[in-house]
Amino acid sequence: MLRTSASSDSKMGKVLNLDTINSRVRDMEYAVRGALPTRAEQLAQTLSCDSTKASLPFKQIIFCNLGNPQQLEQKPLTFLRQVSSLVEYPELLSPEKIEQTKLLFPGDAISRARSLLASVGPSIGAYTGSSGLLKVRQDVAKFIEHRDGFPSDPSNIQLTNGASEAVARILELVVSDPSVGIMIPIPQYPLYTATLTRLGAQAVPYYLQEESKWSMDVPGLTGILRAHREKGINVRAIVIINPGNPTGGVLSSKNMSEIVQFCEREKLVILADEVYQANTYDKKNTPFTSFKKVVSQLSSDVELFSFHSISKGMVGECGRRGGYLEMHNISDSVKDVLNKMASVSLCSNVPGQLAVDIMVNPPQPGDESHDQYNAELDSIYNSLKSRANKLYHAFNSLENVSCQPAQGAMYLFPQIKLPNKFIDYCSKDNKLPDQEYCMRMLESTGVCVVPGSGFGQVQGTFHFRTTFLPQEKYFDSFIHLLTVFHKDFMNQFR
Amino acid sequence: MLRTSASSDSKMGKVLNLDTINSRVRDMEYAVRGALPTRAEQLAQTLSCDSTKASLPFKQIIFCNLGNPQQLEQKPLTFLRQVSSLVEYPELLSPEKIEQTKLLFPGDAISRARSLLASVGPSIGAYTGSSGLLKVRQDVAKFIEHRDGFPSDPSNIQLTNGASEAVARILELVVSDPSVGIMIPIPQYPLYTATLTRLGAQAVPYYLQEESKWSMDVPGLTGILRAHREKGINVRAIVIINPGNPTGGVLSSKNMSEIVQFCEREKLVILADEVYQANTYDKKNTPFTSFKKVVSQLSSDVELFSFHSISKGMVGECGRRGGYLEMHNISDSVKDVLNKMASVSLCSNVPGQLAVDIMVNPPQPGDESHDQYNAELDSIYNSLKSRANKLYHAFNSLENVSCQPAQGAMYLFPQIKLPNKFIDYCSKDNKLPDQEYCMRMLESTGVCVVPGSGFGQVQGTFHFRTTFLPQEKYFDSFIHLLTVFHKDFMNQFR
Repeated sequence: MLRTSASSDSKMGKVLNLDTINSRVRDMEYAVRGALPTRAEQLAQTLSCDSTKASLPFKQIIFCNLGNPQQLEQKPLTFLRQVSSLVEYPELLSPEKIEQTKLLFPGDAISRARSLLASVGPSIGAYTGSSGLLKVRQDVAKFIEHRDGFPSDPSNIQLTNGASEAVARILELVVSDPSVGIMIPIPQYPLYTATLTRLGAQAVPYYLQEESKWSMDVPGLTGILRAHREKGINVRAIVIINPGNPTGGVLSSKNMSEIVQFCEREKLVILADEVYQANTYDKKNTPFTSFKKVVSQLSSDVELFSFHSISKGMVGECGRRGGYLEMHNISDSVKDVLNKMASVSLCSNVPGQLAVDIMVNPPQPGDESHDQYNAELDSIYNSLKSRANKLYHAFNSLENVSCQPAQGAMYLFPQIKLPNKFIDYCSKDNKLPDQEYCMRMLESTGVCVVPGSGFGQVQGTFHFRTTFLPQEKYFDSFIHLLTVFHKDFMNQFR
Repeated sequence: MLRTSASSDSKMGKVLNLDTINSRVRDMEYAVRGALPTRAEQLAQTLSCDSTKASLPFKQIIFCNLGNPQQLEQKPLTFLRQVSSLVEYPELLSPEKIEQTKLLFPGDAISRARSLLASVGPSIGAYTGSSGLLKVRQDVAKFIEHRDGFPSDPSNIQLTNGASEAVARILELVVSDPSVGIMIPIPQYPLYTATLTRLGAQAVPYYLQEESKWSMDVPGLTGILRAHREKGINVRAIVIINPGNPTGGVLSSKNMSEIVQFCEREKLVILADEVYQANTYDKKNTPFTSFKKVVSQLSSDVELFSFHSISKGMVGECGRRGGYLEMHNISDSVKDVLNKMASVSLCSNVPGQLAVDIMVNPPQPGDESHDQYNAELDSIYNSLKSRANKLYHAFNSLENVSCQPAQGAMYLFPQIKLPNKFIDYCSKDNKLPDQEYCMRMLESTGVCVVPGSGFGQVQGTFHFRTTFLPQEKYFDSFIHLLTVFHKDFMNQFR
């Protein structure tokens, strides 16, 4: 689509046109923000003009294409915002203002703001060290130790502008030349394919097993790896997204042990995208286990990078761009290179760094804000769980639709057996069937989801990804609209 | 230095070692955060243990290696922080709390917070559009129109995590393959050489004319360009840093017109790094003029990217990572690619975006905070100007040191004619003379500067870059320490 205007740019005598710019960035695909959300924005614009509202069959656009909780009215955690507010304007803590401030902020938010400011130095407006504030990295390390029961060292932590920046940095480190291959799950979050396209490296796909809750087929990995290595691809690392995006699957620790042993045998570095670690909905049967823990339990020397973020979980502070990576079994000289990479962009944003601190070091029992903090967490958690469950049942009650349970993350990834008549129609019209299905869903319901082709899927199968983030008050209507649309669609193309 | 441990990593059987990782990121150099600041951090650590303080000839480390004003106690602008504080915790604006809030915050900060929150949508915790909030981009466009007297379109603005991210994004767009060359000034801010190394492109250096206040020799550019094009280098763009980093020079608009005409003739894209646009210290004789204005005045079709940031000027909010780029004469299809590049990292951080809004849209006459805001700006500005001037005179009074005036930016870049005896000593010891001089300065004075070799300099000349950011109360002692050190040094090696 982008290519159409290349010749006109070049006729206009531009130095930069689609034929001359970096083809790797030109060819990146990032479906989460592609044609569907663009159309959804147009529809939202139309709806904002009241007069035309009657001409559309829905009253609002529901953006289920992005894991963007606060855009869908999820409330921020009060304590996090109170502390963030105080550190922005330290005069609130001055002797002249503190009495007034105490009327507006709880004591533990005030003392946390004071201690964070003390650890920052003169101002949150200064660059921090390239890897981020030592105090925050220390708190991250403590959080990891407490989570896993194994030591973590602050010098192995880098704070980043969200996990996306961290992932891109590690991929860039690992990809030394175009022969390098990185194993990625299919379906995957498109950051990975986009970044590999950008870096000119090879994505080596491995398929998740939909029928068994999107688990990993470890024996199958060996075959894929060998086949690619025989073709001369220098397969060097594997990306694992757990809990899964877009699948919602959660790996068992048994499955993970097999994966670590496989990586050890095959000399593969692990990139563990664990940004949804707080989003698991059956903590008894399918709890989250970190790769750091499994690697440590096995005393493995597998090189591991783990990623976490404030954008997901119950924190949901996407706009703040805060995250971290942990390095495990990484050589000191490679760590030095990573720190230098961080230093070229100076440091990650400080408000995001401080929010990481609050996520990993929340109010403790006895603290003034403890009960409210936990009540807010629980309320968001329980609501997500109930919405996931509702939507799972709704999808499974639709004709030709099957959906695995959301064990984790913020997504369901239902499969639709599209009627042949519809597939034929799309093939004549040169359309991707899943994309066309989702576009029709958007036009009929106002619900914006992402077609499975944006994440990858087994050839001939069709899926879409939807978040279950709309608030519960909208949820029944949301499910109703989907159900009616799908029924009409099936009747049209059966 | 880094290479020494490569073989030991590989002996340890690591997949990732200095021989296997991406050599382009391994080989990047970024002097602003190199050996000197590392040693400075060690000394600062030593000083923090009171007992050993007596053993060092100074009482504190003064970090003049980074343009990091708030780290050197520059006060943040009150209005910016008040608004930032309010948007973090919108409950302060609720009917229950607003009366208390009014006792702590001025009315215009409250109304600005309300209007920003309204433009953000549900929460600053949500991702914004990939290019940033429309309201902020509109305000940036208005600011540019007011500054230049020529139209600016919000759809040509992208908000970024500081200007560094913006620069890296544009360089990545322009560098399509290793034959691409980008003209960069020498001396330059090392972000440019580091990023070009990272991208595998060619830096095509052009030398600034030190003797005429670091101006650009436009006739000379043609020769450099032709020579590189004849060698098969596809020279496609030119980087101009104005006001200059590390030089402190400010280009005249006549010089700029010649540059634009040269770029038009030679089909070069301009990357105009204008992050120091508010830092000019002789507004009558050497005012800042934007390249956007000059290109517009000449009705030129030169493709232009301009960069600005909240980190510099009198705002100095480095830690917040806020910035923007403006595209001018860029084709729509290339803009689409840039928006897609932005979308892969989702969006820049929202607190940084909102701070950009306040920088470009400060309190207006009649607003409650107007006088204080301007008084704060003026106080910082006047102090910077006076410190620049003091330091300029101090350098020029030193034996063998000559320094151009700081017309702009936050730096002086004095030249030192190092004694032959010292140069011989360094050459025997395999040391860079300017690096060794700066290291000795650090060990004797606690002042950390950056050697000229980190920025590039004419072969056989030696410089260092220092900010003039230490507060005035430290300034006399700062100058005194430098003067004593330099005198001793000269006496030792004369």
